[in-house]
This record gives sequence, structure tokens and C-alpha cells, in this order.
Amino acid sequence: MAALRAKLVAEALGTALLVATVIGSGIMATQLSRDVGVQLLANAVATGAMLVVLITMFGPVSGAHFNPVVSLVFALRRELGWSALAPYIAAQVLGGLAGTVIAHLMFGMAPLMAGGATRTGAALWFSETIATFTLVLAILLTLRHKAGNVAVIVGLVITGAYWFTASTSFANPAVTLARGFTPSFAGIALADVPAFMIMQMAGALAAWQAERWLAASLSGEKSDA
Amino acid sequence: MAALRAKLVAEALGTALLVATVIGSGIMATQLSRDVGVQLLANAVATGAMLVVLITMFGPVSGAHFNPVVSLVFALRRELGWSALAPYIAAQVLGGLAGTVIAHLMFGMAPLMAGGATRTGAALWFSETIATFTLVLAILLTLRHKAGNVAVIVGLVITGAYWFTASTSFANPAVTLARGFTPSFAGIALADVPAFMIMQMAGALAAWQAERWLAASLSGEKSDA
Amino acid sequence: MAALRAKLVAEALGTALLVATVIGSGIMATQLSRDVGVQLLANAVATGAMLVVLITMFGPVSGAHFNPVVSLVFALRRELGWSALAPYIAAQVLGGLAGTVIAHLMFGMAPLMAGGATRTGAALWFSETIATFTLVLAILLTLRHKAGNVAVIVGLVITGAYWFTASTSFANPAVTLARGFTPSFAGIALADVPAFMIMQMAGALAAWQAERWLAASLSGEKSDA
Amino acid sequence: MAALRAKLVAEALGTALLVATVIGSGIMATQLSRDVGVQLLANAVATGAMLVVLITMFGPVSGAHFNPVVSLVFALRRELGWSALAPYIAAQVLGGLAGTVIAHLMFGMAPLMAGGATRTGAALWFSETIATFTLVLAILLTLRHKAGNVAVIVGLVITGAYWFTASTSFANPAVTLARGFTPSFAGIALADVPAFMIMQMAGALAAWQAERWLAASLSGEKSDA
Repeated sequence: MAALRAKLVAEALGTALLVATVIGSGIMATQLSRDVGVQLLANAVATGAMLVVLITMFGPVSGAHFNPVVSLVFALRRELGWSALAPYIAAQVLGGLAGTVIAHLMFGMAPLMAGGATRTGAALWFSETIATFTLVLAILLTLRHKAGNVAVIVGLVITGAYWFTASTSFANPAVTLARGFTPSFAGIALADVPAFMIMQMAGALAAWQAERWLAASLSGEKSDA
Repeated sequence: MAALRAKLVAEALGTALLVATVIGSGIMATQLSRDVGVQLLANAVATGAMLVVLITMFGPVSGAHFNPVVSLVFALRRELGWSALAPYIAAQVLGGLAGTVIAHLMFGMAPLMAGGATRTGAALWFSETIATFTLVLAILLTLRHKAGNVAVIVGLVITGAYWFTASTSFANPAVTLARGFTPSFAGIALADVPAFMIMQMAGALAAWQAERWLAASLSGEKSDA
Repeated sequence: MAALRAKLVAEALGTALLVATVIGSGIMATQLSRDVGVQLLANAVATGAMLVVLITMFGPVSGAHFNPVVSLVFALRRELGWSALAPYIAAQVLGGLAGTVIAHLMFGMAPLMAGGATRTGAALWFSETIATFTLVLAILLTLRHKAGNVAVIVGLVITGAYWFTASTSFANPAVTLARGFTPSFAGIALADVPAFMIMQMAGALAAWQAERWLAASLSGEKSDA
Repeated sequence: MAALRAKLVAEALGTALLVATVIGSGIMATQLSRDVGVQLLANAVATGAMLVVLITMFGPVSGAHFNPVVSLVFALRRELGWSALAPYIAAQVLGGLAGTVIAHLMFGMAPLMAGGATRTGAALWFSETIATFTLVLAILLTLRHKAGNVAVIVGLVITGAYWFTASTSFANPAVTLARGFTPSFAGIALADVPAFMIMQMAGALAAWQAERWLAASLSGEKSDA
């Protein structure tokens, strides 16, 4: 019980600091620059850097998922107990919301506010699917062959995907919900959150299947997934 | 057969995500910034980051070439079977084109369009030779002494070469062809593609010979330094 | 005695070069760019890079704290002798001031000048607490599981925290004092220094307790996840 | 003899590609951006990235000095034979000049031109001393404790020092001379080259002595250096 509690604290604290980074660096960026390219560059560098830090810190404690669809995939792979899945997701969601509050308080804003930016339509939904597929497949394949590099790989894939997807790669339902409560650079209208979550789930499940197929094909057996 | 099929899927998927990164981050950059320096910085950071990710992911599956001249050099070195060369190149070319489609769909554009930017002349051709020579020599020498670092080294050499060559370092025939079908930041006029490919081949073969000469000089003879 | 002297020289020299980086890159940035976002990006990249360098260089000599609250936490953990704490802090403070002088001389300014920027108020104080908490917790957890990665993790956490905190993450009393003597980009009014120091101490002590709680929860009890 | 010849080719080729990076990325940056901060950021990122690449590639061949004062310090430490020093320096100087030619040809300029920028005065000279001291001390201390990280550390120290020194950290006599033949962003007036070289030598020798003193103090003996 104490160990599970520590894991949940790690998931909540890590997700909180992740969201504080995403939102906080977005606020700082819009305060300092008028070039939106410079703003996204700062946002991407800060988020990528902190992902490496947070996964290195909390990976040995809880696995450092910070992301409900990652936890779901690990449950499907039987690397996370099904009974731990709901507590993990609850910790991530609450931690994410706490991260919004932390970012807002650091910048002198109200704790929670309505998310501002409209982010909807087929192009963005396709972007979220690609982003989450790439993130989850990168995690699964790196774990298989270079487990010690997962923190760096996740930081780099998000830094890249902030730029190469049209949606700036939310790729995480808990973080998406938390970003629904900020009107700042990283925000999203709450009404647009559910569609993003569905696409993230689809991308994650596709990555789970793709990794199974690759692994089965390489192990010299007939592929049947 | 299943293993070869998995390797070809890895080459196609990796090249697709690489091209989606190159083109997608270029579109995003021109949408967000009016400073072309900031645009290329974003493009270079995203491409370098994703190269590290994709080579780490797919290296243990297929070698993660994503590049016909790299596959050719490995065939010349007898590290890739000659019978696998044509399938590898086909997977890279088809994957690259799929990457253009993915990028365009993420940004709400038509799947394939005519490449816009004229990129021709002796200075750019010389740049492509230098870029591909540096890329392939870096791969071969790193494989010899620090094989585990190849993913990072390839990411860094492309990040650097985006800036230090006048052509922004395409350095890859499959990616060059795929970039021939986008009118965006990363595009190239289709008529200019063949000359780029020839120069990339020349640079790769020069690197292959340079590595052979260095290896022969260092081995089997008395050291006198 | 000779060994302690070497450690103190390492702490002083490392802190001097750290402060010279923070202040020097800030001066360079404001000379070269009018976009404050570009200025902070340069400042963050230079500081993060040099932290990795300095901790790699001096870590095996002195532990490479360069930071009084880090030394304090190591004393509380009995990993630094209490008798060494005051000399360590003195070396860090003197080294930090020397760093200001070095930066100013490199840019043709007077050796020490009054700090210019007003940095005060609850939002910035909260920011310093979060920044130092994150820095110290990252150090402690990384040391526990991936001690060889501490230099990189510290560089990344500061690069990120320059952006996600409203205070740009001073997170170090010796560096804060040294920045009180420059009117340039990285400066802080001397009157605002004590409150920053108190918040940094609070964040460091909170991180110390958080790590103790996590470690106790994870060890010696039945795992139930 | 063959081995020495391979080492000299490695030193010349590595220095050529290093100078081509420094000068080429500077030309590209001034062509693409009007913000000098963005220009130096691109220049610093490209140079740092390529230093990691080139040292990883050529380190196992020649040591990857690419820098006469580094070779001199290794000769003083008896890690490079004195008879190899003059050939090493010649290879670095000729390679550096070839790098200028390569950069100019890639950008359609005359092979060698007079260096344009005036860079003189006590502040810049002091900057070069600090830059070279930091570079050489970082190399020596990293080699002692984390030899496998030298390539990354050199890349990071130069990325940082481009920003925190007023001279943008040439820190290398062969590269400085080569930069004396370009009128572009990275250039230096030929008349200003000798003073830079003297300061670089002073910084390197100071680092050599500092490392000796630290090593002697730590090994429990009386320091006598």
C-alpha cells in the first residue's frame, strides 16, 4: 500500500510538473516574444527538457507514465496491474490539474480558467493520432532494445512532434484536460478536449498493435496479430 | 520472410515519419514565424530530434537506414545482402512518399502536390556532395568505434548540416524525391531532384572509400605517432 | 587539507564559470537581439550547456554543488561533513562574485555594479520555491538511480525552468547574490535578493523531505502495485 | 608511417569540416535572419552539434584535437609524441584553410578572401583566454573521469562559450587563422589573428597547470606545481 501510494504520488507530481512546464513556458514565451515561431521553439525546448528530467526522476518509482493512454497500453501488455490502472489515471488527471494551478499561480493568474483556443477539425484530429502513435511506438520499441534511453527518446519525440504535427502534439489525455483550464498559449477549449482524447486513444492502440506485429514477425513465427 | 517483411515495414514507416517531420515542421515554421532563420532552426531541431528517435526505434529491426545511399554503401560493405537492396530502396521511396501525404493531411493540404522551390546550380550540388559525404562517413566511423551512439550522431550531423551547407543538406535520395511533391518550405522542384540524387550518390561513395582507406592505414601496419 | 583545498577551489571555480555564463550570455543576448524571447532562449541554452560541462568537470573533485542549498541538503543527508559546509558556501559565494567580475571584464564593464532589475512579489517567490524544489528533487532522485546522469539532468532542469517559472529560476543563493551586482539582463536588485534566498531554502528543504518520504514508502514495505 | 598519415588526414579533414561548419552556418544564418541573436544561436547550435560528431568520428583515429593548443598540451603531458606535434599542427592549419574554401564554394563565393571583422581590444583578448582555459580544462578533467563523454562536453562548452564570452570563443589558433580568410559572419581581420592566438595559448597553458594542481592536491600529496 505504501509503495502504491508512492507510485501514485510520483505520477501526480510528475504530471503536475509536466503540465506546469507546458503551460508556464507558453505564458513566458508569449510575454517575451512576438514571434510565434520563437514562442513554440521555447515551449518545445522546455517541454522536451523537462520530460527527460521527470522520466529520469520518477521512472524508477512509478514507471513515469504521466499519461493515461500509456498506462492503458502497459495494462494491455500486462506490465501494469489492471487494478492499478484507475488509480494511475486518477493521479495523472488530478496531478495535471494541479499543474495548471501551479503554472497560473507562478504567473499571477487565477488558479483555473476556461481554456481559450479552438482546436478542432479533421486535420488536427489526424495530427493527434499520428503524434500519439509515434510517441507510444517510440516508447515500446525503445523499452525493448534500449530501455535506459526512454527518458531521452520521449523528450525528443515531443520536441519534434510539437513542430511536425498541426496540433502541436498534445498526445496525452490528462495533459489535454489540464490544458482545457488555461486561456494561455498552451490552452484548448474544453469543448474540443473529448475529440482529442479519442484520437489519442486510437493512436496509442494502433501503436500497441504495430509493436506486437513487429515483434511477432521478428521472432520468426507466423504473424497473427 | 516474416523478418524481411518486418524490416521493410520498419524502413517504410521510419522514412515516412522522417519525411513527415521534415515537411510538417517546415509548414508549421512558415505558418508561425516570418524570420526564415527561426524557421530553419525549428526545422533543424525537429528533424534532428526525430532522427535520433526513429533510428533508436527501428535500428534493431532493420538497421534504420531510411536512405537508399546508406543501404547501397552497406551492400557494398556486405553488411546488407544484395538481394535485400532493391526491396529496401523501394520501401524507403514508398515510405517517403507516404510521409509527404501524412504531412499534407495533418496540415489540411492535398496529399501530393508539385514541388515548388528551384534548387539547382554548382554550389548546391557541391553542398549535397559534402553533406552526404559527411553523413555517411560519420555513420561508418561511429559504427566502428561507438555503435551505440549512431542515432545521436546522425541526428546531430543533420542538425548541423541543415545550417552549414547551402542546400540545407537533403543528403538522401528517397527523402529528396518525397520533398519533390510538396510546395512548402522543405520542397524542391521535381526537375531538380535527379541532380541532387547524383551528388548524394557521389558523396556516399567517396565516404565509403575514405573509410576504407582510413581503416586500412590504421590496421596491420606499425604505428609511428 | 590539500584535498579540501582542491574541493573548495573546484566549487569556487565552477560557481565562477557558472555565473560568468549566466551573466555573460545575458549581456551578449541583449546586445545581439531585440526579441526578449530569443534573448532568454540563448541564455537558457548557454546556461544549460555549461552546467552539464561544469558538473562533469568538477563532480569527481568536489561534488560540483556550486549552490549553498544543495550543499546544505547534502549535509542534512550526511553526505557532506558539517565542518565542510561553511567553507563550501564561502567558496561558492566568493566564486559567484568572481564570476560577475569575469563576465563584466569580458564585456568591458566595471567589475561590480548595482543590480538593476526589480524582482519581487508572491508570484516570483512561489516560482523560486517551485524551481528549487524541482532542481533539488531531480538531483536527489537521479543520484539514487542514475548517478552518472546528474550533470545532464541538472542542465536540462535549469534550461526548462528558465522558461516555465515566472522568475526565470535563479534557484541558487550564491548565484542570486552574484547576480545582485550586475545591471544587465540577468541582474536582480540587491534588496530583492534575501526573499529569493529564503524561498530557495524552503524549496530545497521541501525536496529533501519529499525524497525521504518517497524512499521510505518504496523500501521495506510490501509492494502492492 | 601509414598510421601517422591516417592520423594527419583525420586531423586535417576534421578541422576542415569544423571550419566549414563555423563559416558555412554563419553565412546561412546571415542570409536567412536579420536578428543577430538568431544568427548566433544557429551558428552555436550547428558548431556544437558538429563538434560532437567530428570528435566521435575521428577521436579513435587521431584523438580529434583539431586545435594546435590542444595538441601542444597533450605533448606537454606526454600523451602526444613531440615529433608528431609539428605535423599535427600543420595538418590542422591546412585543414582549417581547406574548410574556409569548402564553405565559400558551397555558398558560391571566392575560395579565400580577406577577413572582415575587426576583433581587438583587452575585453576580447580576456574573453579568448577564459574561453580557451575553460575548453582545455574541460577536456582534461573529462578525460580523467569520463573519457567517453569528451565529444559531448566539447560540443557543449563551445555552444555555451559562443554566448558567454564577448569574442564568441574562437579558442583555437588553426580555426582563428582560417576565419581570417572569410569576410562573412564568422570572419576576423587577419591583423587581429596573432593577438587572439597568444591569448588562446595563455588560456591553454593556464588550464594545463590548473589541472596539474588539482590532480596533485587530490592525490594526497603536497602540491608543488
